[in-house]
Amino acid sequence: MLLAQLHLTLPVWAHELDLEGRDFAGDEAKVAFAIELSRRNVEARSGGPFGAVVFDGNDRVVSIGVNRVLPQSCSLAHAENMAYMLAQQRLQRSRLNDPSGHFLLATSSQPCCQCYGATFWAGVDRLLIGARSEDVMRLTEFDEGPLPADWVGELEKRGIEVVRDLQREEACAVLKAYGEHGGTFY
Amino acid sequence: MLLAQLHLTLPVWAHELDLEGRDFAGDEAKVAFAIELSRRNVEARSGGPFGAVVFDGNDRVVSIGVNRVLPQSCSLAHAENMAYMLAQQRLQRSRLNDPSGHFLLATSSQPCCQCYGATFWAGVDRLLIGARSEDVMRLTEFDEGPLPADWVGELEKRGIEVVRDLQREEACAVLKAYGEHGGTFY
Repeated sequence: MLLAQLHLTLPVWAHELDLEGRDFAGDEAKVAFAIELSRRNVEARSGGPFGAVVFDGNDRVVSIGVNRVLPQSCSLAHAENMAYMLAQQRLQRSRLNDPSGHFLLATSSQPCCQCYGATFWAGVDRLLIGARSEDVMRLTEFDEGPLPADWVGELEKRGIEVVRDLQREEACAVLKAYGEHGGTFY
Repeated sequence: MLLAQLHLTLPVWAHELDLEGRDFAGDEAKVAFAIELSRRNVEARSGGPFGAVVFDGNDRVVSIGVNRVLPQSCSLAHAENMAYMLAQQRLQRSRLNDPSGHFLLATSSQPCCQCYGATFWAGVDRLLIGARSEDVMRLTEFDEGPLPADWVGELEKRGIEVVRDLQREEACAVLKAYGEHGGTFY
């Protein structure tokens, strides 16, 4: 008997997030929220040290994602992928900005090769990044995988603007804390 | 209110597949089954012209996947990703061959940049491919996205063997039929 149904969830604490009155104007505030989610995920022991958020063109949160790989037995369940899938389910379309609208992903760390690839089809216009891949690999044991040589240029060629090093220190602090605990609660 | 739950399904016809007595020994037979799924997905109008299958080291089917992007409003729901996620859920681990076992993915067409990236973390030892990327782009309107220059070498460096051009003509026939119908039933 083959499985034909997949079910993935965010941690229980995601239900309790209160976004009322929060201001996410500006790129820094957006990535800061993604980093806040990464920290909370580590503290709650609900997954790896990564967070991501899809915002619409009015600075509103469409979806959030955190790493759920081990709790959900799913190598696809990276923060960026969770955020993309939940945003698409919420808006009921497979490409967020088709036919219209402006969307972006803010992520605590540079996407690995898997989430990099997913970014091409998700329907975002901008990608905001905290820590760099070299930070992830220096501070934790995660592999980021291979990317095209001009990975930023490939995104920009398809109309996806990339902004890096937003709140990089803060993002690194979460990775460092996670790495120093040996990632045992991944 | 943010969504915190994701639900993805295979088409209803997947429940009716009868694998009793079928012999999947050899690489050609495995890719032929992935192509059979891609054809059935097109005929049933349940998604795009792509199929994939995870096999274990004894030629047994662990999971199947077909493209479900539009029916499920999910850009991640490519055939390869569906097969990886369903195999991992079935075995209840995020990396199929960790701690042990031998697994492979057979896919009707070369993985796009998204499923290419996912292949590094899924826990497979071999990747069997039918049609090439250039076939997909020549016969349909799908974009395959950017890959590292030595995409095969990057997989092999991490212990994932790649075999290409298996049943390539048969895979192309499904893509061609789909492309000629303008992909209207995607």
